[in-house]
Amino acid sequence: MQAVTPDHLLGQLRWRYAVKKFDAARRIPAETWGALIESLVLSASSYGLQPWKFFVVETPETRAQLLPHSWGQKQVVEASHLIVFALKNGVGADDATRLARRTAEVQGVPVDATDGYRKMVTHSLTSKPQAEVDVWMTHQIYIALGHFLTSAALLGIDTCPMEGFVPAKYDEILGLPEKGYRSVVLATAGYRAADDPHAAKPKVRFETTEVVESI
Amino acid sequence: MQAVTPDHLLGQLRWRYAVKKFDAARRIPAETWGALIESLVLSASSYGLQPWKFFVVETPETRAQLLPHSWGQKQVVEASHLIVFALKNGVGADDATRLARRTAEVQGVPVDATDGYRKMVTHSLTSKPQAEVDVWMTHQIYIALGHFLTSAALLGIDTCPMEGFVPAKYDEILGLPEKGYRSVVLATAGYRAADDPHAAKPKVRFETTEVVESI
Repeated sequence: MQAVTPDHLLGQLRWRYAVKKFDAARRIPAETWGALIESLVLSASSYGLQPWKFFVVETPETRAQLLPHSWGQKQVVEASHLIVFALKNGVGADDATRLARRTAEVQGVPVDATDGYRKMVTHSLTSKPQAEVDVWMTHQIYIALGHFLTSAALLGIDTCPMEGFVPAKYDEILGLPEKGYRSVVLATAGYRAADDPHAAKPKVRFETTEVVESI
Repeated sequence: MQAVTPDHLLGQLRWRYAVKKFDAARRIPAETWGALIESLVLSASSYGLQPWKFFVVETPETRAQLLPHSWGQKQVVEASHLIVFALKNGVGADDATRLARRTAEVQGVPVDATDGYRKMVTHSLTSKPQAEVDVWMTHQIYIALGHFLTSAALLGIDTCPMEGFVPAKYDEILGLPEKGYRSVVLATAGYRAADDPHAAKPKVRFETTEVVESI
């Protein structure tokens, strides 16, 4: 594979920051947005379970409705795109079956051939309390968020990950319970405003020697 | 910034998979590894708290000791590198102070100028039970994992994220409690073995229409 150089990668990652003010007039082009959606689909997850759905809130009215439940963070309405990362409710045996069926389909093998895998995943999901499964699956959502932030930075797209919102209100407004999901975390994406004061501030990181240790 | 093209990004992400068998003879060159470490340092986190430490287990004997507590997954000893993503114990007011001090230092402002931020972060961390803070901070670790997997794929480095290990045993062997940390998740990195049967299998993902919804 033709990889990017270390300098190129780090340049993009240093350029990334959590945008406070987006340029509300600029939209991400369809091709780039399609690649970002595809990068989400390609995210890693435990056993490949993909226990998620990514809700892209398109309607301006809906985004305006969400704003009062977003700790006043205007990125929710000003960014080109808003994604609600949602967790599937009650991930369990059915999801293992669904994954096994899809595996057979994609890999062109009989469903029987995936039965060992289905049983292993089912056991793993059903041998612990649902609350514990939910915690575990929620972690996968954050892997997807990390994928998304990095992929966007590589494409030159600005983002802001957002945990400051009221999940119950988001769920209600977006009708997520009826769909079988609940909101976990948000990402907004687009282009930084020329006057976002945060854009020019040096990135604050602890010394590498403080956060990385060889043992 | 000079971004990568959507095709280039997606090519690297499709090339990525969770490696089951690494080429034990190949080591990641120092420059590339340095960039991966730097990409971890640059990961996003709530309030920029960076509630983590990335332990790179170098000693072959230590890696061999960890193997029996890794569900028999040989990546732990065969991959070029093994990183233990660890959470800082008891993240709280002291961490807000540390972050404020570092912010003042990096941005060249008096510590007093960061006091509002310190107070806000302190309030956020101390107004909820420590268990809840730990859950929240654990999520940040998974953002870093997602960053790492994507960054590595862009650099043409293979990885395997691993949740299948015994954290208490890892903590004990690596002496993490004395250092004030506990292990959360692992990543191994290196080069896929030519005979890893998983390398050739088509990637299994649900249809985009099943995991992405516009509303």
